[in-house]
Amino acid sequence: MTDTVISSAKREVVIGFDRPFVIIGERINPTGRKILAAEMVAGDFSRVSADALAQVEAGAHMLDVNAGIPLADEPALLARAIELVQSVTDVPLSIDSSIVAALEAGLAVYKGKALVNSVTGEEDRLETVLPLVKKYGAAVVAISNDETGISQDPDVRFAVAKKIVERAADYGIPACDIVVDPLVMPIGAINQAGVQVMALVHRLRTELKVNTTCGASNVSFGLPERNGINAAFLTMAIGAGMTSAITNPLHEEVIRATMGADVMMGHDPDCARWIRKFRAEPPVGADGEAGRGRREVGRRRRAA
Amino acid sequence: MTDTVISSAKREVVIGFDRPFVIIGERINPTGRKILAAEMVAGDFSRVSADALAQVEAGAHMLDVNAGIPLADEPALLARAIELVQSVTDVPLSIDSSIVAALEAGLAVYKGKALVNSVTGEEDRLETVLPLVKKYGAAVVAISNDETGISQDPDVRFAVAKKIVERAADYGIPACDIVVDPLVMPIGAINQAGVQVMALVHRLRTELKVNTTCGASNVSFGLPERNGINAAFLTMAIGAGMTSAITNPLHEEVIRATMGADVMMGHDPDCARWIRKFRAEPPVGADGEAGRGRREVGRRRRAA
Repeated sequence: MTDTVISSAKREVVIGFDRPFVIIGERINPTGRKILAAEMVAGDFSRVSADALAQVEAGAHMLDVNAGIPLADEPALLARAIELVQSVTDVPLSIDSSIVAALEAGLAVYKGKALVNSVTGEEDRLETVLPLVKKYGAAVVAISNDETGISQDPDVRFAVAKKIVERAADYGIPACDIVVDPLVMPIGAINQAGVQVMALVHRLRTELKVNTTCGASNVSFGLPERNGINAAFLTMAIGAGMTSAITNPLHEEVIRATMGADVMMGHDPDCARWIRKFRAEPPVGADGEAGRGRREVGRRRRAA
Repeated sequence: MTDTVISSAKREVVIGFDRPFVIIGERINPTGRKILAAEMVAGDFSRVSADALAQVEAGAHMLDVNAGIPLADEPALLARAIELVQSVTDVPLSIDSSIVAALEAGLAVYKGKALVNSVTGEEDRLETVLPLVKKYGAAVVAISNDETGISQDPDVRFAVAKKIVERAADYGIPACDIVVDPLVMPIGAINQAGVQVMALVHRLRTELKVNTTCGASNVSFGLPERNGINAAFLTMAIGAGMTSAITNPLHEEVIRATMGADVMMGHDPDCARWIRKFRAEPPVGADGEAGRGRREVGRRRRAA
């Protein structure tokens, strides 16, 4: 049983084996969002603030904050975005950048224990990111690729994750502060991507005893009806032991799938969260859900 | 790897470990459907016919046929329903009754190799149903309860399933012709019901090497937004190794969840079935799915 504690000034979120799944909202990210990028460069962070509130309202437990805009002063933008988001919501944050100076700028202004997103198995990343994680007492997302790229072989991806965990230990960072991203490939291109990642999540949990996360939407890249694939992936991954995901809580399917999976895993005692969320909704279908339920149970009892 | 072959006169369906999930449509069942029951007793089977066609159209691979109406001549009604359904569709059928004479009447008129629904671990059921299954060369659903009722202990439910498989072998029925229903309890009442049934499905598959099925909707009994719970259950159960379910294909969530799970398990090569089913649908959300996909992959590449 492994708990990864992330906090803001006022609130703590625990990513853990026997706990509800943690949704890390992915929306605050200018990559591919031209309007947001232009606004941030111009000093207008109103959309960042609105995206933060909307995601928390929709059910995000943490928020990822990324300010990766080509040719912009990313460290300054990221620090400002983090200060702003922390001023409007108290959910803990994931500080997301591929630029080490930006990670440091974000960590310097962050109130609480952040999740650094991310380190990989590449030597230069290990040597620059891990000392920062240690210095600020943060936790870190470890992406299981290295200088050779992303291996198609799950054993290699497991080995890379193991290397990062061991190297982190050398820096005094415990395994419970590492959340491994096993990397989910687009299943439209790689038929076995789902089976591979489920097996990898299971090994990371049982052998390496670490929490896991992933960019959940990659799995459905290029396919129609992506939310259906994403929901299937999240549900099955939670069944395999995944404990968090960086994804879009504004998609109702994401909330429904992860909350339903929490119920199924026994992580929603008395289904209290599920009932609170959905009891106000009208019944689906003209014949009514309740009636259908009684019928089915009656049938089963008779058969038994 | 275990294959359970069920057939009609013209079509074969295989429930198997490395195959797409098999949906057995549950709708043709007068239990709790007063209008259907009254029509069947009055000799009007038009709704049976319509329900058969609608379920196949919605994606059912097989159909369950039940004619359990109190005080009616169930053997005659079941035989007539089966003949009618076989005249309008060629999907294989599950012949569903708790009355042995009705099972026999159904088997006598059935064209192909049927799935008998069901036998339990109760002595009188074993002694009357298994000889019928052998006589007609059918397959059978084995429900893991016995004279003592439904045990809360998954080990006991496993032991009951094992007993049925062994007893069937005494009658010359191979394990591949037994599809075990591990019995899924309402998760609103039993918090661990999901975890228990997933573990049981896994054991049934790896230790007893049998295919599995269940009345999938029971899990959500008493809860709001039942389709969300049912979808989470089906997806996670397929991840755990379940190979079929008796459920309602008219609920879009059932089709979406099981087809998505098939993709995730690598049982939909090139996602061909998924793409065929969903590619005509308009994109979800104003910003478009494709755009979001490119963004996510771009971000990941950058992080890596």
